[in-house]
Amino acid sequence: MYRIGLDVSGGDYAPSEIIKGAILAKKDFGEDITLIGIKDEIEKELVRCGASTESFNIVNAREKIEMAEAPAVSVRRKRDSSIVRGVNLLKGKKIDAFVSCGNTGAVVCASTLILRLIEGVERPGIALMIPTKKDISLIVDVGANIGPKPLHLLQYAAMASAYYEIVLNKKNPTVGLLNIGEESSKGSEFVRRVHKLFSSAPMNFIGNLEAKDIFSGKCDCIVCDGFIGNIALKVTESCADFIGKSIISTMKESFIGKIGLFLSQNSLKKFKKKIDYAEYGGALLLGVDGIVIIGHGRSSSLAVKNAIKVAIEELSRGLNSEIKRRVNEVCQDSRVRQVFTT
Amino acid sequence: MYRIGLDVSGGDYAPSEIIKGAILAKKDFGEDITLIGIKDEIEKELVRCGASTESFNIVNAREKIEMAEAPAVSVRRKRDSSIVRGVNLLKGKKIDAFVSCGNTGAVVCASTLILRLIEGVERPGIALMIPTKKDISLIVDVGANIGPKPLHLLQYAAMASAYYEIVLNKKNPTVGLLNIGEESSKGSEFVRRVHKLFSSAPMNFIGNLEAKDIFSGKCDCIVCDGFIGNIALKVTESCADFIGKSIISTMKESFIGKIGLFLSQNSLKKFKKKIDYAEYGGALLLGVDGIVIIGHGRSSSLAVKNAIKVAIEELSRGLNSEIKRRVNEVCQDSRVRQVFTT
Repeated sequence: MYRIGLDVSGGDYAPSEIIKGAILAKKDFGEDITLIGIKDEIEKELVRCGASTESFNIVNAREKIEMAEAPAVSVRRKRDSSIVRGVNLLKGKKIDAFVSCGNTGAVVCASTLILRLIEGVERPGIALMIPTKKDISLIVDVGANIGPKPLHLLQYAAMASAYYEIVLNKKNPTVGLLNIGEESSKGSEFVRRVHKLFSSAPMNFIGNLEAKDIFSGKCDCIVCDGFIGNIALKVTESCADFIGKSIISTMKESFIGKIGLFLSQNSLKKFKKKIDYAEYGGALLLGVDGIVIIGHGRSSSLAVKNAIKVAIEELSRGLNSEIKRRVNEVCQDSRVRQVFTT
Repeated sequence: MYRIGLDVSGGDYAPSEIIKGAILAKKDFGEDITLIGIKDEIEKELVRCGASTESFNIVNAREKIEMAEAPAVSVRRKRDSSIVRGVNLLKGKKIDAFVSCGNTGAVVCASTLILRLIEGVERPGIALMIPTKKDISLIVDVGANIGPKPLHLLQYAAMASAYYEIVLNKKNPTVGLLNIGEESSKGSEFVRRVHKLFSSAPMNFIGNLEAKDIFSGKCDCIVCDGFIGNIALKVTESCADFIGKSIISTMKESFIGKIGLFLSQNSLKKFKKKIDYAEYGGALLLGVDGIVIIGHGRSSSLAVKNAIKVAIEELSRGLNSEIKRRVNEVCQDSRVRQVFTT
């Protein structure tokens, strides 16, 4: 049985949706779940949901790091916050994985400082699973590292490949570099250097991926710097929200449109489920020496449950030892080293 | 009467959709239109569309710059291409504006080399009009300058403000800087420097704009570097395409969904019109000393007509003299100069 720690104070709908998610996860997966947050609040919420307080471990963490707080400062000052307590429990091997839907920057910062990085890894990266026309793609980094070096992106590619291969069960997954054109000559100087590095590395690099193909399923792992990745991710959310709301308001303008909308409800729900981040269970913090999953700030109970599921999958497959092996294989490759020395 | 030059050889559906667009524009706006491309092809297409060859001027340009060709090389080598000929006609004052749906890089390159820049402007930028929840936002730069300096972004802000104010008729339009967070401390070092510069400049700067708010209509002019802007734009297209196709295929899976889809057709068409780039008439090449409009590669005849409309509006409002005034006002502002010297 795995021991999963859950940050109950983080997320826009905390603590209620987080606790509901824990109850769902307990029912479906039966693992040992530790709820980390304000004890009174947790107990009250469990009772309200009709769940037994005995089914969960509770760790009292009296401080909250708010969503807008500066990560480094809050992690340093709020030692009794759910995030810092959770990461410390993981460090102390009291839990096997930590899941938080709280302040992303604070989770990254606390994890990096307390857990440290997997041997050989230089920077952590946030990877997100996105639905595509074919299946699922993993995009990394979506915001952990906004001023990366080419080596960091190489390591992200290696880590994402490891995840895709051992957790998502696909041999030799493809890697693409997010760029403004397909040709190797395209893009900024930084991206062109990364392209050269990727071309020399022992991985299934298929070249640049244009942003217009991000949802095409053309490649399994999409690599980019954290600034670009964050913008791409947020633009996607904004665009999906805009399109969804605009379609519905346009339909409501006419009587026939209203009937059409009524009859389309089930299909639209099914579609929403397909693209809902809640189904994909949050982002993976790759590279830290421990299993940490970062849920979306707006996580519903379903999203929380699925984030816990992702943590269990990573644990059962031994993700981090594979990451360590891959990163070191790629970084010590003679052709890669040659690119660095030229 | 304005004299508009139209590149007939550029675009995925050239020459037929381009010529159809010219015919629509001629009918609606009655300006003097010069078709630039392979003369035989143009005449044949005009006849096929039942239009008189007398209604248009035709300039024979025997070469084509393909969509995937390297811009600088093709512009240097293909002097008799529709793009180089068109820009030269504009330079020689044989036409008042040039519209092309061809290779964007080549249009930017030819325009910059041949027309040169407006006095005071350091780099051209591509601005795109996007629909939002409220109205229209202008996003600049979406790909002309992928390694800009902070000063270039300041000039983009000034040029976009000029466009928004005098062409779109809104006094003192708001300017936002695309970033991964709202606070001035957020983002890369580059973006933080730009934020400081924008804060000191005489314009209506409202601070950072998160990518999740790109379609919110929160600000009129959205400024970013060309790499980010291009990625954001292409991700949007990809996302919209993915959502559209997925909704339709999900609806077709059930009988009721199919009826719903049938009844929703008119509303969906109306919605498509609202978000269709064809309605917005292409991108503006800001900063070059002449009016140049870059249509989308996949432009339909409607998009071509609307690109011509945008050119006419820019001409009638005297956009470039206002750009010159603004750019110089902003760059010579004492507070802005102080930021540069510290």
